[in-house]
Amino acid sequence: MAVELELASVQNQRIKDLVKLRDRSARDKNNTFLIEGYRELLRATEKNYPIEQLYICRTLFLGENEETLIASISSRGAQIFACSEEVFRKISYRDRPDGLIGVAPQCHLTLSDLNDILKKKKTPPFLLVAEAIEKPGNLGTILRSSDAVGLDALIICDQCTDIYNPNVVRASVGTLFSVPVIETSSKEALKWLQEHQIGILAATPSAEKEFTQVDMRVPLAIAVGTEQLGLSKQWMQKADLQVKIPMCGMADSLNVATATTLLLYEVLRQRK
Amino acid sequence: MAVELELASVQNQRIKDLVKLRDRSARDKNNTFLIEGYRELLRATEKNYPIEQLYICRTLFLGENEETLIASISSRGAQIFACSEEVFRKISYRDRPDGLIGVAPQCHLTLSDLNDILKKKKTPPFLLVAEAIEKPGNLGTILRSSDAVGLDALIICDQCTDIYNPNVVRASVGTLFSVPVIETSSKEALKWLQEHQIGILAATPSAEKEFTQVDMRVPLAIAVGTEQLGLSKQWMQKADLQVKIPMCGMADSLNVATATTLLLYEVLRQRK
Repeated sequence: MAVELELASVQNQRIKDLVKLRDRSARDKNNTFLIEGYRELLRATEKNYPIEQLYICRTLFLGENEETLIASISSRGAQIFACSEEVFRKISYRDRPDGLIGVAPQCHLTLSDLNDILKKKKTPPFLLVAEAIEKPGNLGTILRSSDAVGLDALIICDQCTDIYNPNVVRASVGTLFSVPVIETSSKEALKWLQEHQIGILAATPSAEKEFTQVDMRVPLAIAVGTEQLGLSKQWMQKADLQVKIPMCGMADSLNVATATTLLLYEVLRQRK
Repeated sequence: MAVELELASVQNQRIKDLVKLRDRSARDKNNTFLIEGYRELLRATEKNYPIEQLYICRTLFLGENEETLIASISSRGAQIFACSEEVFRKISYRDRPDGLIGVAPQCHLTLSDLNDILKKKKTPPFLLVAEAIEKPGNLGTILRSSDAVGLDALIICDQCTDIYNPNVVRASVGTLFSVPVIETSSKEALKWLQEHQIGILAATPSAEKEFTQVDMRVPLAIAVGTEQLGLSKQWMQKADLQVKIPMCGMADSLNVATATTLLLYEVLRQRK
């Protein structure tokens, strides 16, 4: 069995530092983030994502496979800390914690990593650009859908939501570890897409064609912006394709993660 | 200008009762619920939804059309209460309140109301059955998508989330007022659907056909269950069509509101 250190006091400085990781400033300073939950940690290990420390509380475990996961994470060099329930509840950001929280280094990919990713591909590039997704839950849901359609990469521009926000990790259900996330500026992304002759598709209510009526089998980057304002001018002006999602009711827009998923699956339907 | 009563003390019993309306037990007891936000209240009035009381705080207004909305709600008989900022922040359930909260009676529709709704229609019935959607945010997003596709009605079975939960109202962005919501048991719903010869479509990972490969132009009720467990046996056994949503990544499911929206829009695509 792996060596475990015991943590029983909520006053421990280590515990205080973990709680701070809920704030972006502390995450950025340490270049680390929290991965809470069995499913999320399992997916991180499946993708060989490095985990530096693992905090566990056996009385909170919900299943039977936790020990296998702990052994696997420990064997890759993570320190294991066994916590009292009081301590664990202090560091957990969930209502119903399942007794597992990891600390991992942040991994930042850039457009040059994207070049490497696309070099290995034989099918036309399939990218998603998120310009200003504000809610961590929506960004997490978008990652989950991106994983489901086999997206090549998600490009986050002019980042306003930190992808290492605990609620992104949670809403993504760990798919944050399977979808490459590139961070850059809108300016750089636009330049890169044009250089690589990848068409930009923007959804806007003012488009003439519906999203099921344009050819998505070409090299494609779907660009999405905020729910309220849509994409910024710089993206709308450079968009090669503009499409609308039919709206038959009283509302004029869908939830941004929902709308994005419709576009992603339309690519899948057409490329089948 | 409408008569306004002033509320300046958070100790006022009326304020305490409003805060209680965040809990289902208080909502059910009074058969009322809260509608917070300009957009949500606007949509309620557009659909002639009755509003009994309106609480306002002018210093929190974000736009310029609030007074028109207040006049319109007042002219339909609502009592208007002007609140101090302290009082308003006490009753608001938002981080950034926009100075408008209404109290409205709950409206409960049954399967016999659904008969009336469908009688007026010329196209094949288009229904959605939600069996056990736990998160209010997901139910609200499903309502928003239901409005967007022009769904005839949402049937909620064996209700585990109250549709009058403030977070349903918020995530629905007021489309709760445009989509008829029928409340019933799974048993009654199944009986009703069979009597009316409406096909039941269930999404399950074990289905052979993809959701884009079955005919959705027939009278249809799409049934969705929890993210984790899917639909219960009673629904799966009675399903006329089973479909899967392709999953190309590491995760085995999508967010439930997202998956539901894909199915709803596929109906729209096929019926065009």
